[in-house]
Amino acid sequence: MTATDRERDAMHAALALALRGPRGVNPQVGAVLLSPDGEVLAEGWHRGAGTAHAEVDALSQLPAGAARGATAVVTLEPCNHTGRTGPCAEALIAAGVARVVYAIDDPGERSSGGGARLRDAGVEVVSGVLADEAAALLESWLTVQRLGRPHVSVKWAQSLDGRAAAADGTSQWITGPVARADVHERRAAADAIVVGTGTVLADDPALTARRPDGSLFDHQPRPVVVGRRAVPSGAALTRHPLPLLQDDGTDLAALLGRLAGEGVQRVFVEGGPALASSFLRAGLVDEVLVYLAPTLLGGDRLAVGDIGVATIDAQRRLDVASVTPLGRDLLIVATPAKETP
Amino acid sequence: MTATDRERDAMHAALALALRGPRGVNPQVGAVLLSPDGEVLAEGWHRGAGTAHAEVDALSQLPAGAARGATAVVTLEPCNHTGRTGPCAEALIAAGVARVVYAIDDPGERSSGGGARLRDAGVEVVSGVLADEAAALLESWLTVQRLGRPHVSVKWAQSLDGRAAAADGTSQWITGPVARADVHERRAAADAIVVGTGTVLADDPALTARRPDGSLFDHQPRPVVVGRRAVPSGAALTRHPLPLLQDDGTDLAALLGRLAGEGVQRVFVEGGPALASSFLRAGLVDEVLVYLAPTLLGGDRLAVGDIGVATIDAQRRLDVASVTPLGRDLLIVATPAKETP
Repeated sequence: MTATDRERDAMHAALALALRGPRGVNPQVGAVLLSPDGEVLAEGWHRGAGTAHAEVDALSQLPAGAARGATAVVTLEPCNHTGRTGPCAEALIAAGVARVVYAIDDPGERSSGGGARLRDAGVEVVSGVLADEAAALLESWLTVQRLGRPHVSVKWAQSLDGRAAAADGTSQWITGPVARADVHERRAAADAIVVGTGTVLADDPALTARRPDGSLFDHQPRPVVVGRRAVPSGAALTRHPLPLLQDDGTDLAALLGRLAGEGVQRVFVEGGPALASSFLRAGLVDEVLVYLAPTLLGGDRLAVGDIGVATIDAQRRLDVASVTPLGRDLLIVATPAKETP
Repeated sequence: MTATDRERDAMHAALALALRGPRGVNPQVGAVLLSPDGEVLAEGWHRGAGTAHAEVDALSQLPAGAARGATAVVTLEPCNHTGRTGPCAEALIAAGVARVVYAIDDPGERSSGGGARLRDAGVEVVSGVLADEAAALLESWLTVQRLGRPHVSVKWAQSLDGRAAAADGTSQWITGPVARADVHERRAAADAIVVGTGTVLADDPALTARRPDGSLFDHQPRPVVVGRRAVPSGAALTRHPLPLLQDDGTDLAALLGRLAGEGVQRVFVEGGPALASSFLRAGLVDEVLVYLAPTLLGGDRLAVGDIGVATIDAQRRLDVASVTPLGRDLLIVATPAKETP
């Protein structure tokens, strides 16, 4: 069974509706209800944990009985799970919806099975419609479901020879303005930005995502500081628009789990070297972003420290995903190697 | 005054003739003598230091008087200098050559001025014909004239985080076979390959330029070992087809001068880290070749050690000339920065 052109159009609309909702613990989902002759009856989207799911939001726009025989077009498989709200599959069945068209299966262990439940109740079900578009929209959320934690990017700037600073610790402007602008764009795409207390004390970073003119991007990452040392009361990050979370760093996996529970899907680990090394040592890195300045520094101020590799067989092999010139610098994006060479 | 089509054709032939001679202390030069109506009278090329220059080689093909009124087409300005052979400008004048067409000026302090000498004697002189092609052919030789020493490429393989080996010293196969094949091709393009005694003792390299099947390239770089420790009598490099030169490394500039005097135009410094750092510290590097393996090692086995940079203002800034994927690895070629950012 395939979707009609009207249903595909409705799925495009549902994907756009999904984006009205916030990125967080729950997926962004949109829904459109069509009459049997393909007219749009109602639209809905999910506004975040604790609020109505998209299908129920759409149904709520209609008087009782008005959805009988209708088709529900939804970006994610209707849930089969009673959480803070009831299962959407049941709501659709109760409303008399005759047909459900959805894009991608719900990957949740507890929430999946809505498609089967609908079929059991005699509802026609079509899945996989605009699945790629829906998966792209939900990429970060799906990653969290798959990993059980947020996606972690670890970023550092280094000289060609792997140093973060000169021997005396001076490091200002290793990379140029184009590279720094790229960092801020990636900060804006993250939900949390994590630094060590050493970096806070040494560099006093604001941890905001800023445009080159200094203005703030609309989406700001939440500031997270790892380490036991106190953040100075006058530190720049205390003026961040979002509240600071501090963690002692003894269990980075637990920290990531906590962040996921608070709706964080993308974590940007900005440094310094000790923190980056800790994430690498713990195997909690999905993506490495190396801003490589074409300069040589020598000395002992390394961008990456001990990552727990004693011998070559234990090396952390990566695959280069992309190399991008940024002004005079290079950005190398690499991900953990999928296969041994 | 410009060259005729016949003369340009003859210059192409002269460039091909030049390549028959060896790369060495003297430039590779070719010459073609044309009759006044454009017929080829004779060809010549330079066969290396101590032998006739190309123009004289061509003149020697003809009976006395046969070059009177002829045009000499030469890839390099005829010399005005008596070395082991007499000045070519005088030989052309004495032979009655009426016109000389050449590609590029002789950059030598003592040997230049041949064009002016010819003009003074009433010979028509046209220069700059196929100058780019001739400059490309003589690139390495011209570099030696400009620098007063051979061109120096320093190559190392490193992990993304700048390590040459894991903490216990194991390093085999950091880079893959495509990168290693590239190294051998570059060895074959060099006249000398320089390693430290530490590398000889640790890795026992053959220092030959080999194809992937193990066969030797036609052109082999001369093996040079830097350091005071003795090369073991059974070391692989003692079986190199060219004789070994060992130098104590106290004066790398003097070593390069000596190599230039022996006809070495391109030096490939292969390591290890101490030797690469010494060349960098001495400012004797024209090109850095970093074979970057997408892996992380941590630890203290750095690809580059102390290069004399104490503070960020003393950093050795480079320009990225190219980034080339080689299998899973990247080759980053960089040259000393021409301008401060």
